[in-house]
Amino acid sequence: MREYNFGGGMPDPESFPVEGLLDAAQEVLPELGRTLVGYPDPRGYSELRDVMVKRFHRKNGVTLPIERFALTCGSMQAINLVTQYFVQPGDTVVTEEYTYSGTLGCLRRYGANIVGVPTDDDGMNMDMLEEKLRDLQGQNIKPKFIYTIASNQNPTGTNMSVPRRERLISLAREYELLIVEDDCYADLHFEGVPPPPGIYKLADFSNVIYIGSFSKILGPGVRLGYVSASEELLTQILSLKIDGGTSNLAAYIVGRFLKNKLWEHLETVNRIIKAKRDAVMEVLAHYSPEAFEWWTRPTGGLFIWIKLPDKTDTPRLWKMLDERGVRLAPGRAFHSQGQEVPFLRIAFGYPTLADIHEGVGVIAECVQKSCTV
Amino acid sequence: MREYNFGGGMPDPESFPVEGLLDAAQEVLPELGRTLVGYPDPRGYSELRDVMVKRFHRKNGVTLPIERFALTCGSMQAINLVTQYFVQPGDTVVTEEYTYSGTLGCLRRYGANIVGVPTDDDGMNMDMLEEKLRDLQGQNIKPKFIYTIASNQNPTGTNMSVPRRERLISLAREYELLIVEDDCYADLHFEGVPPPPGIYKLADFSNVIYIGSFSKILGPGVRLGYVSASEELLTQILSLKIDGGTSNLAAYIVGRFLKNKLWEHLETVNRIIKAKRDAVMEVLAHYSPEAFEWWTRPTGGLFIWIKLPDKTDTPRLWKMLDERGVRLAPGRAFHSQGQEVPFLRIAFGYPTLADIHEGVGVIAECVQKSCTV
Repeated sequence: MREYNFGGGMPDPESFPVEGLLDAAQEVLPELGRTLVGYPDPRGYSELRDVMVKRFHRKNGVTLPIERFALTCGSMQAINLVTQYFVQPGDTVVTEEYTYSGTLGCLRRYGANIVGVPTDDDGMNMDMLEEKLRDLQGQNIKPKFIYTIASNQNPTGTNMSVPRRERLISLAREYELLIVEDDCYADLHFEGVPPPPGIYKLADFSNVIYIGSFSKILGPGVRLGYVSASEELLTQILSLKIDGGTSNLAAYIVGRFLKNKLWEHLETVNRIIKAKRDAVMEVLAHYSPEAFEWWTRPTGGLFIWIKLPDKTDTPRLWKMLDERGVRLAPGRAFHSQGQEVPFLRIAFGYPTLADIHEGVGVIAECVQKSCTV
Repeated sequence: MREYNFGGGMPDPESFPVEGLLDAAQEVLPELGRTLVGYPDPRGYSELRDVMVKRFHRKNGVTLPIERFALTCGSMQAINLVTQYFVQPGDTVVTEEYTYSGTLGCLRRYGANIVGVPTDDDGMNMDMLEEKLRDLQGQNIKPKFIYTIASNQNPTGTNMSVPRRERLISLAREYELLIVEDDCYADLHFEGVPPPPGIYKLADFSNVIYIGSFSKILGPGVRLGYVSASEELLTQILSLKIDGGTSNLAAYIVGRFLKNKLWEHLETVNRIIKAKRDAVMEVLAHYSPEAFEWWTRPTGGLFIWIKLPDKTDTPRLWKMLDERGVRLAPGRAFHSQGQEVPFLRIAFGYPTLADIHEGVGVIAECVQKSCTV
């Protein structure tokens, strides 16, 4: 059976730089390979951290000291370390109403109560955030942090506007809360104005933990992400990073490749995923409004968030999609409370254009068949 | 100033297979590189896990199912996960009196009370273990696990005898305790009979968590270790491995290299480190008994454990060695209670033969100078 993989936030396999990584390996291993008999720097290979410094400068206009960046095993390890450090069972964490399933799984593993704040096209609704924070304060509950994916959000594909970013920062200051900014998707930008500056920068690097990744621009298989914060916060988080360091073998190769090719590679990747987004948009419109009520039109990132008709029998739909070889994530995977909701997420980075044309059609067919009369 | 690095458990840099890894990369990346856009298998790349299966079979005569092995970020992540899963602050863990400093640091981070059991040339003293367990039971204390490096122990370089391994297993059964076997050094065997079968095997794979590593045969910089246990125990441990998986980029390259070259590479590595051990032995004998009272003569592993004269002013010695450019680990780094003790550990894998001849001489000079009259 043909498979249609709209499931994971994965980039395009055809644009994966096999040759580029091999060239980088051939350059860097004769130079540094023998140092692999030693342990990595506890904050990771400096050349790759320097790539982060330069990337951050290009996007935010500020050169941070390299010491403020530490490599992790993907952004997921950074999220895990932050959660492990700050969250005890029963503690509260605030997130967007729909957010990254990996973060939700991690928060639940450590016993967090997750409070979701509704979002719209401009990101998290700040009036509702303020209301939630006031309510929580009334119950003597101080959240451990506010977790946000402000740029090219997962799963909705939206960007938080600058005024909302600023209001988030001022609310966090008022309630003395830490912000955890997951900025994994900001580099994938393919249309219109780029995402606004990071909250980390807008907050003047204070009380914000900033998390990034090379998984979305290269691939999750390299397992290289990073975390940046004030010296004090970074030291706290890294005190739990008891893994002997992040692989220098992977970091040497990826670091050398990105040092030479980051911006060129991003152009290639973004050109390809833009074409894929366009293809999904076209098929969605074709089957609207019967199968798809509305959807987001991302200008970056890897995800389209789709509202299904309310009369969709969603459990029946997920089963039917599975039987038809369609891999995608149901809305509930991203819901802060894990509720069954009439939404689905299409991750459009991985499938081919042909998969998209055919596969989104299969989804439409299944949605229509699973609507209750 | 010339540096003499006897500090870390690192293999020989000259035997690090730069060419071999490049060849493996050139073979495996065109074949599998594009799959790096996906997440690794939660238990890690199968080809490398298959290497573990074959290695375990060759050493222990048993073919375990591949599902019983999971890749980790070095053995250190495995030790961390086990500790995080089982240890709450105040819990007790039993170890050899002198053991791996990384494990001690991890146990302390999670608030464990560490109970050290004295060792001799045949490993942990089982009469004393039994006494400790009886004492603890008398205080209603059930240790969370017994951690042991039974083969080519760190830091002492000794092997636990088969009768002691068997008695350890029967004591663990009597007191219903889990054993954590750190088997990171067993592959480095260069003289006489190989280390006895693993406790994991002798215990028929029951109530033992087995930890291994590729750090000692390749280098800690690759960050590839592994853990094996019963399905139930392995699932428990991996429930805390929230890092999105272990780097496939590193695992593909190392997996392909070891699949083709493991045994050949081990022969090279072991030949080189045997020569280095011999060199250390020669210099130690030359300065004995004035500087060095006695020492272990390892037939495998990377460490020699040296007894200094009791009248050594050890704090003064460590300072003096540091000023002379000698990097090594003081005895207290390995002591279960962190006590200042008249021992030092020489890690002989990394330094050149010239470094050894000159550097061990410098150590002898410093010891003699730091002896109180």
